[in-house]
Amino acid sequence: MTLYKEILLTRRPDGSPIGPQLFEVVENEIPTPAEGEFLIKQTHMSMDPAMIGWMMPDEESYIPPVALNTRMRSSGFGEVVASNHPDFAIGDKVMGMMGWTEYTLSSGQGVNKVQSNIDPETALAVFALPGLTATQGLFNVGKPKSGETLVVTGAAGSVGSIVGQLAKAEGLRVIGVVGSDEKADWIVNELGFDGAINYKTDDLKSRLAELTPDGVDVFFENTGGPIQHHIFDRMNAHGRIVVCGMIADYTAAEPSAGPNWIPLIKKRITVQGFAMPDHYGDIPDLLQKLTPYVLQGKIKYRTHVLEGLETAMSAMNLFFTGENKGKLLIKL
Amino acid sequence: MTLYKEILLTRRPDGSPIGPQLFEVVENEIPTPAEGEFLIKQTHMSMDPAMIGWMMPDEESYIPPVALNTRMRSSGFGEVVASNHPDFAIGDKVMGMMGWTEYTLSSGQGVNKVQSNIDPETALAVFALPGLTATQGLFNVGKPKSGETLVVTGAAGSVGSIVGQLAKAEGLRVIGVVGSDEKADWIVNELGFDGAINYKTDDLKSRLAELTPDGVDVFFENTGGPIQHHIFDRMNAHGRIVVCGMIADYTAAEPSAGPNWIPLIKKRITVQGFAMPDHYGDIPDLLQKLTPYVLQGKIKYRTHVLEGLETAMSAMNLFFTGENKGKLLIKL
Repeated sequence: MTLYKEILLTRRPDGSPIGPQLFEVVENEIPTPAEGEFLIKQTHMSMDPAMIGWMMPDEESYIPPVALNTRMRSSGFGEVVASNHPDFAIGDKVMGMMGWTEYTLSSGQGVNKVQSNIDPETALAVFALPGLTATQGLFNVGKPKSGETLVVTGAAGSVGSIVGQLAKAEGLRVIGVVGSDEKADWIVNELGFDGAINYKTDDLKSRLAELTPDGVDVFFENTGGPIQHHIFDRMNAHGRIVVCGMIADYTAAEPSAGPNWIPLIKKRITVQGFAMPDHYGDIPDLLQKLTPYVLQGKIKYRTHVLEGLETAMSAMNLFFTGENKGKLLIKL
Repeated sequence: MTLYKEILLTRRPDGSPIGPQLFEVVENEIPTPAEGEFLIKQTHMSMDPAMIGWMMPDEESYIPPVALNTRMRSSGFGEVVASNHPDFAIGDKVMGMMGWTEYTLSSGQGVNKVQSNIDPETALAVFALPGLTATQGLFNVGKPKSGETLVVTGAAGSVGSIVGQLAKAEGLRVIGVVGSDEKADWIVNELGFDGAINYKTDDLKSRLAELTPDGVDVFFENTGGPIQHHIFDRMNAHGRIVVCGMIADYTAAEPSAGPNWIPLIKKRITVQGFAMPDHYGDIPDLLQKLTPYVLQGKIKYRTHVLEGLETAMSAMNLFFTGENKGKLLIKL
């Protein structure tokens, strides 16, 4: 009998750092696939800010929360190691929702084969949630036009870095908001952003004014926090605000105030929230839009790789502190 | 030499009640139309909440503010009494931007002839700014669907009352927010709304929950104020918020806080401001959409008529106190 580990969510976050106190590591026997099933050995787990929302007891969110005492939800990359399914063979590389586990059975639902020339890191950092979210939010919600100015928060993050690079490729002026000088340097000198604001150290209002002399046409919001109001104040007429994430507020006891709505009328602004589960049916279209940019070398990324299943339990705190440098992955 | 009166804006509002201290009444000689001009004797002036915005020194708004020491801007209804213009004859009834004046010259720009079977009150209360604003905001921004629930603030106002009746005609459940029991009675018993909330006396949260058991799909915002947060909290997934007016905040020294944006993501809500000057080119389409409802008797209105040009100087305060009952007009 061979055992594998998985991790269950046993308590909801209460505002203190996310850690082992919310989880339980259990060991099970590695199962054998029944008719129509196959067994995946997960090699890379993706850690995404959306997972924080999935842990909350929120009945109103776009997908149901992870039920207590069940496996924590996440996407990942792995290899088929046993199969009783006609479409999946041993050795196939697959990507999809696998959860915090070393092995998982699958019927194929929500799991897709990955072309053999795509490595696990590119698969999870670009062609999974980050790239799809960036593509949907930027193009279908933000509707960018060449010559416009875009400001993206969380600009060194997995989504924000792709948003900014796509917008640059489309001919926009792109300013990124980050939380360290190292990240500012990366997005400007490696990714080609036109400017960076360090929200922890810069004078937000004057720095933003300096970097967006023509105002802001598209605001891609990944973080929330005080900078939101400053960017909002610089929106141009007919501006679009894409609300993708509010990491600064997710576990706050009292959510911070949003901007008053008068400027929405004066400037005819649209503020739109979106979430990828509404657009799973559009993934082929989104990949078709995204792939040429990747093939042309216009999308750079970096990964922040931790090792071992148990590191997942504390890893999400990196999203709050902003200490992760690049797409957060856990190698199993 | 025959004199007429007009009123100039001489100071900007400072938060105290709008009154004669902001204006100057001047007398001029009635002019003679030059080649390509005609002279209008205005009979009815329209008073609209948007005028408050036009008085503010705001460079960012959708139309430039009224310059100091020039005629206050407004729309109105009148009759051509002298003409040197090929398309306008003495006796023609016209509607358009005329300003606070008894007489005005026009080149025809922004002034339209009115069919002789439409009386001045219907013209200004339905086929002018209120009806066009309601039609644009409800259909093109709110995108209502039969069976959904709509909540409209300022529901007994010139725009709100038409929004609610159009939505009822489209098969929505319609709840209106008003500031008096008399208005609540009017929108429910005369206009056919499904329910009314008196924001001054009701327990907002529990009354709203009672009247919107299935949540809110379309929120048509005319007022701002504390009820905004309660309606926002009841929005359904994929809800649309149409931001048309924020009368409660227009002259506030410090605008009130808006809602935090996390629910925009969780529920994929769109919040969109709009203003009619962007849609003047769409007026034929809007009238084509609106007219059948009027002809079918589905749009009732009432007017609140003051008399005499000088009453305009204090009339706008009725928008802040909510004391006007129906579309505010001034008969000259």
